[in-house]
Amino acid sequence: MCDKMMLKAKILELETGGKPIVIVNKEDAEDLGIRGLSRLVIKTKERKLTGIVNITTSIVEKGEIGLSESVAKTLNLAGGEEVEVEVAKFPSSLQHIKNKIKGKKLSYEEIFEIVKDTVEGNLSEGEIASFVVALEAKGLDLDEAASLSLAMVETGKKLELKKKIIVDKHSIGGIAGDKTTLLVVPIVAAAGLAIPKTSSRAITGAAGTADRAEALMPVNLRIEEMKKVVEKTNGCIVWGGALHLAPADDVFIQAEYPLTIDPLLLPSIMAKKKAVGSKFLVVDIPTGRGAKTKTIGDANLLAKDFIELGTRLGIKTQCAITDGEQPIGYAVGPALEAREALEVLMRRKNVQDLVDKAAHLAGILFEMVGKRNGYKLALEILNSGKAEKKMREIIAAQGGCEKITPEEIQVGENKLDIIAERDGIVLWLNNAGINEVARAAGSPKDRGAGVLLYKKLNDKVSKGEKLLTIYAEKSRKLERAKEVFEENNVIGVGDRREMLIQEVKEVPLHKKTFILER
Amino acid sequence: MCDKMMLKAKILELETGGKPIVIVNKEDAEDLGIRGLSRLVIKTKERKLTGIVNITTSIVEKGEIGLSESVAKTLNLAGGEEVEVEVAKFPSSLQHIKNKIKGKKLSYEEIFEIVKDTVEGNLSEGEIASFVVALEAKGLDLDEAASLSLAMVETGKKLELKKKIIVDKHSIGGIAGDKTTLLVVPIVAAAGLAIPKTSSRAITGAAGTADRAEALMPVNLRIEEMKKVVEKTNGCIVWGGALHLAPADDVFIQAEYPLTIDPLLLPSIMAKKKAVGSKFLVVDIPTGRGAKTKTIGDANLLAKDFIELGTRLGIKTQCAITDGEQPIGYAVGPALEAREALEVLMRRKNVQDLVDKAAHLAGILFEMVGKRNGYKLALEILNSGKAEKKMREIIAAQGGCEKITPEEIQVGENKLDIIAERDGIVLWLNNAGINEVARAAGSPKDRGAGVLLYKKLNDKVSKGEKLLTIYAEKSRKLERAKEVFEENNVIGVGDRREMLIQEVKEVPLHKKTFILER
Repeated sequence: MCDKMMLKAKILELETGGKPIVIVNKEDAEDLGIRGLSRLVIKTKERKLTGIVNITTSIVEKGEIGLSESVAKTLNLAGGEEVEVEVAKFPSSLQHIKNKIKGKKLSYEEIFEIVKDTVEGNLSEGEIASFVVALEAKGLDLDEAASLSLAMVETGKKLELKKKIIVDKHSIGGIAGDKTTLLVVPIVAAAGLAIPKTSSRAITGAAGTADRAEALMPVNLRIEEMKKVVEKTNGCIVWGGALHLAPADDVFIQAEYPLTIDPLLLPSIMAKKKAVGSKFLVVDIPTGRGAKTKTIGDANLLAKDFIELGTRLGIKTQCAITDGEQPIGYAVGPALEAREALEVLMRRKNVQDLVDKAAHLAGILFEMVGKRNGYKLALEILNSGKAEKKMREIIAAQGGCEKITPEEIQVGENKLDIIAERDGIVLWLNNAGINEVARAAGSPKDRGAGVLLYKKLNDKVSKGEKLLTIYAEKSRKLERAKEVFEENNVIGVGDRREMLIQEVKEVPLHKKTFILER
Repeated sequence: MCDKMMLKAKILELETGGKPIVIVNKEDAEDLGIRGLSRLVIKTKERKLTGIVNITTSIVEKGEIGLSESVAKTLNLAGGEEVEVEVAKFPSSLQHIKNKIKGKKLSYEEIFEIVKDTVEGNLSEGEIASFVVALEAKGLDLDEAASLSLAMVETGKKLELKKKIIVDKHSIGGIAGDKTTLLVVPIVAAAGLAIPKTSSRAITGAAGTADRAEALMPVNLRIEEMKKVVEKTNGCIVWGGALHLAPADDVFIQAEYPLTIDPLLLPSIMAKKKAVGSKFLVVDIPTGRGAKTKTIGDANLLAKDFIELGTRLGIKTQCAITDGEQPIGYAVGPALEAREALEVLMRRKNVQDLVDKAAHLAGILFEMVGKRNGYKLALEILNSGKAEKKMREIIAAQGGCEKITPEEIQVGENKLDIIAERDGIVLWLNNAGINEVARAAGSPKDRGAGVLLYKKLNDKVSKGEKLLTIYAEKSRKLERAKEVFEENNVIGVGDRREMLIQEVKEVPLHKKTFILER
């Protein structure tokens, strides 16, 4: 055995997900006394790098070391050069992960090391999964959650605004057509508070706020551009995915996803708020049978966690438990929703549930910073046209057309009306089902695809009346959406509420929804 | 979104560790609504396969799907063909893993699914790590341990012997120079019991039993060859690594290794015994300061687990807690140890501790199957020459030279004597230190490298006497071994046992040894 040797660099086309994977022949690995996932330090005259070992019997010969193009670039190698390799120690974050598996509480410094090694690619997929599973299996307390948030902030980019009062809004999502943010941001910004809002794109739903906003203006801003927009207008609505706020989360979520466990959900959400400098935060927790949170009890438990973690992080946090039994407003799908929001901002339409929800959330933020009658103030700002004016400023600052009209927002040309087959009232209107139909029609990728409702819960319906219209950009997808509509119990019309909800004939599968949007 | 599309196959040189990794462009992944680690079914006219998705922006273009050579071979694709891909469900073993993370006890069927998907490459590195960590964090009970053993047996190859009484021996290892198996196997086989012994190679030590045996005969047998040897001679000593007994363990150990956790250690050991049909088993647990098990209390706890798991699996198991304070015999390193074992079998030498240990272990097996005075019987078989005769039969059956003499076993030509610098007695003889020296000298790869001791614990020493000789095949490695000897407190000579063992001046690091050899 020796712990050093010279090997010849061989550049390989490898997809390593940013990790410094190096490929070593089995014979050399035996000589070095290493196994897969061991670490090797690779040295050239000027540079060095610690790689994670994969062992092969075929890809590289004895005497060679396989390097991905990115590793070769870091080491400034063209291939064919001799490099010195030396057995390295495992990173100490592995010891911390092991301690967490054993049930030990981790310190900030330990968590920081793990998060840093995660972001820098020094941990393998399995090692990162081990950390996530240890957090899920052993639990994490408030100190650890706060440490995780802070470490995620420290290892990412930050928005540093000169503004004094920075507020923020977050929704745990899951409700079709929830375009509330498109109203809350201009209302709050018009009142003189800074609201640097980052949003996600849809992952399992028909549209994320970033998708909706993109029908009005560009949302793929860099952090410097975002800063200029907020400095100028007090608000913004940008896609969070390219800002590199809390980038560790993008890695952790990969491990959480196949297992639908999410111990890092709250730390990750709060990290992103902390990274933009938020001092006051309202969290929307839609609750109801069709929502991610099913009961008010569950919603309160979640609210408690948000508030306590916020306190630790210096973010004053309140939660709003809102009605999540049906979609918000009438439009579902990026363009349709943007159009509806713009119509409301322009006071052409009054969409009662949407306006009520937006005014409540904005109102809570107003009262948190000391303004009185927050709800009323929010409605005044909306009704006076100040919110519309602010939204047009934000649209312009983000590079959109300030004068945009609802009619200019293109929706799909292929349409299908769904007609009531009987008289009655709307008994249910299923969030997940409507999302499925809109996705089958092309949402969120086809921005003009979606669903427009004409009726909401408890509305009266006459036979032959339109219940909803499905929009698609492509006729093929409209066909598919029609099938999905027919397969799902999307909307129910009946005489009265039926007392029997469901018959249970075999062991049921009750699934908690995994929250990817965060 | 659509859940099916046609993509063009592109064959890539990828090292995927046997997993069916498929590479999809980010845009197609968005269209399909999938993420990394999602599953895709890939269909050609005749064949199909479920692949684990990796997402790229560069390796394959939109419209293409990257396949490793092995996936392409399975699908009988040459590259360039159109294939249909469809979004698949996650394997249900992921749900079982999630349940274990939540603390649920798993049934045999659930464990079998996980083990089967592990062996077949249907789980990603992170998903397998999640299972291992869940077992470590939540613990596994006897039912689950037995299920794991049985599932590992079912998913691997089995040895089916016609013999009636099949016995086995296992050591948890960690003791330098422990060549006991080279004596136990011929003694037991000479008494008419079948002992189909599989052994490991050294991983962290200077020699594994397979390395020692290889200095006497070929050990890389296929399972059919192993069967013939045991049918003919009653015994064998072969390398277990290529037999595909319990192959799941080779995968699980990859996840355990970086974290030095080993929840699967016992199930894996017992699976390999079950797979060769063992009905009676003696487990050697060397115990002492230099051993893996430090105290007799710990050794008893481990013994309890072995015995209970054995009962579940229909393997009558007894344990022997043995003295692990110093190396066994005088020789350390493959060739030196093989030579020592052969000299003892030929009664040219009596190495007291080695003979005593081998006779006790063989004796326990004898008494387990109903023979009286097991220890005495074992010694008689050794002293009568029957064990030597049996060993030569086994050597011949495995393809070695029946007439091999100790002198024909080549040892390294480069030698360095270590001389006592004072009179006294040997106070310590450090297992780990001796292993390090032997490894630096070239063990186990250079078979002739190692250490030959002249003194053992409590032996009297005079100044100028030889304490030990280091052997190496290459002079460069002898130099390195000398440095390692000087850096480590390998052997201690003094007047009397010092009462102070160690001063503790800062928080100490107490490491449990991770048992890779199994």
